[in-house]
Amino acid sequence: MGLFSPTFETLHDLYLNELRDLYSAETQLLDALPKMAEAAASSKLKEAFTGHLKQTEGHVRRLEEIFEALGEEPSGETCKAMQGLIAEGEDYVKASGERDVRDAGLIGAAQRVEHYEMAGYGTTRTLAERLGESEAAEKLQATLDEEGEADQKLTAIAEGEVNAEAATASPRGR
Amino acid sequence: MGLFSPTFETLHDLYLNELRDLYSAETQLLDALPKMAEAAASSKLKEAFTGHLKQTEGHVRRLEEIFEALGEEPSGETCKAMQGLIAEGEDYVKASGERDVRDAGLIGAAQRVEHYEMAGYGTTRTLAERLGESEAAEKLQATLDEEGEADQKLTAIAEGEVNAEAATASPRGR
Repeated sequence: MGLFSPTFETLHDLYLNELRDLYSAETQLLDALPKMAEAAASSKLKEAFTGHLKQTEGHVRRLEEIFEALGEEPSGETCKAMQGLIAEGEDYVKASGERDVRDAGLIGAAQRVEHYEMAGYGTTRTLAERLGESEAAEKLQATLDEEGEADQKLTAIAEGEVNAEAATASPRGR
Repeated sequence: MGLFSPTFETLHDLYLNELRDLYSAETQLLDALPKMAEAAASSKLKEAFTGHLKQTEGHVRRLEEIFEALGEEPSGETCKAMQGLIAEGEDYVKASGERDVRDAGLIGAAQRVEHYEMAGYGTTRTLAERLGESEAAEKLQATLDEEGEADQKLTAIAEGEVNAEAATASPRGR
């Protein structure tokens, strides 16, 4: 949210604010995902980040369609939580050390992003339903489902390849 | 994470970093929850925040026990994502407008916090398991379960009392 304390008189005010927060989060992620893909050592992880970038472009488009239908502008909010989440991911992008361990760190950062987005989309979809915005609610649900799938894919990669290799690199964990 | 690019040679390095990130997140939350409880209009929401404050004190203690067993210090990281998450919650604390709508905003911010923590504890518990730190893994799982319950409680409040009242305050959503 912005620098000044906002006013929320109606659920619609809150709904717009949540939509703008999501829009800011997704557009920040568009910039961050290519860096994470480049930093990933595992080809599966690289693919997961690149694939999620394509999905994220779709999420941004869905939000733009919702704003257009509402006759509102998508910009105006900066999602501070996503700024922090991305800053943590970038620490792993810049980190040195064993590549598979760093990959495990990148996955952890990306899963925090996915969970953050799932919470945001869940809240906003519920608001859309309450406001009778059924078409928007469906779009938000579609994105929510994709964020959940992206999170599961990261878990599968973390539990498979990456952690197994990282564990081999440090058999006693030190 | 800190200002300087860290080095991750082993899963243990990553594990310590994740634990310190969680510790920073939880201690930041200890400061934020009383403000959120004070700002909440609904008595159920106030109780949920106050109850979660007590749980959070327990989460901090569990992390301190894990650090003590490892012979490591808990401090040294600042969780930037939690800084952003709390800044968003504080925007709702300071916001003016209809009280039930603001409560719905506070719930949305708190659920983002819970989801963030669930992702963080999930990653760190998996690392503990891989490193054979079974006692720590159990403690982390116990906290993860409580974060999930707190999230469900917030959903129940959002879907019940708060949103119903907010919808009454704005029957057409505008």
